[in-house]
Amino acid sequence: MSKKRTPDSSPRGRYAYDGLDRTIHERARLGIVASLAAHPEGLSFAELKQLCDLTDGNLARHLQVLEESGLVQSKKGTQEGRPQTVCRLTRAGREQLLSYLAVLETVVADAAAARDESPGKSAGKLRPGWSPGT
Amino acid sequence: MSKKRTPDSSPRGRYAYDGLDRTIHERARLGIVASLAAHPEGLSFAELKQLCDLTDGNLARHLQVLEESGLVQSKKGTQEGRPQTVCRLTRAGREQLLSYLAVLETVVADAAAARDESPGKSAGKLRPGWSPGT
Repeated sequence: MSKKRTPDSSPRGRYAYDGLDRTIHERARLGIVASLAAHPEGLSFAELKQLCDLTDGNLARHLQVLEESGLVQSKKGTQEGRPQTVCRLTRAGREQLLSYLAVLETVVADAAAARDESPGKSAGKLRPGWSPGT
Repeated sequence: MSKKRTPDSSPRGRYAYDGLDRTIHERARLGIVASLAAHPEGLSFAELKQLCDLTDGNLARHLQVLEESGLVQSKKGTQEGRPQTVCRLTRAGREQLLSYLAVLETVVADAAAARDESPGKSAGKLRPGWSPGT
């Protein structure tokens, strides 16, 4: 079996997913960025906390990372006389989310393709020595 | 403006994405798991290294995490007389990837919905005090 088994459609780094920007990819930050993308009018700290189900400390920490990366802008203001911090995606944040989304769509397509492959078909491709069902 | 602005369709934790299993979500491991899902016959260490564009050390470290979590099984054998390690997704690994995939599809739908919303429409929803184009 000297034939190269990796198909030609799988070049070097085919599954490296380089475009999955680490700042956005972190689960909590992905939730923050997605919720802000869905609310272009901005969200208060309290609203973000609720939507992303994060503690004060965690939300503050992740918002700081996102602000330092220029993806999110937060602004202290007042709402009905009470102090309120409102966060919003920056233009750069929106663009970076769109690039991230394009790669994420590839990941979903890759995994969905594997899901839709019939297990019956693939059983015949198992290398010798593998016990089935492990 | 005492009206609650967060829409009823956004309950607590709407963007928490709890199902994004941290073991699979890490970028390098996501690549490893996706490439193994696409190759049910298994992949050698060398093939995985190439497809995921990882160093020996990084691949070994991530494979160890995946094996300890029961998602991947690796087996030392020989190929044409040379020692070869072949890795494969376990049944649990495949199931966990499918659960992960379901949540990922929600993330993509959320972000795509925000992408497809016309920026012109949302401009009118900006809170006062935001300067446009930041």
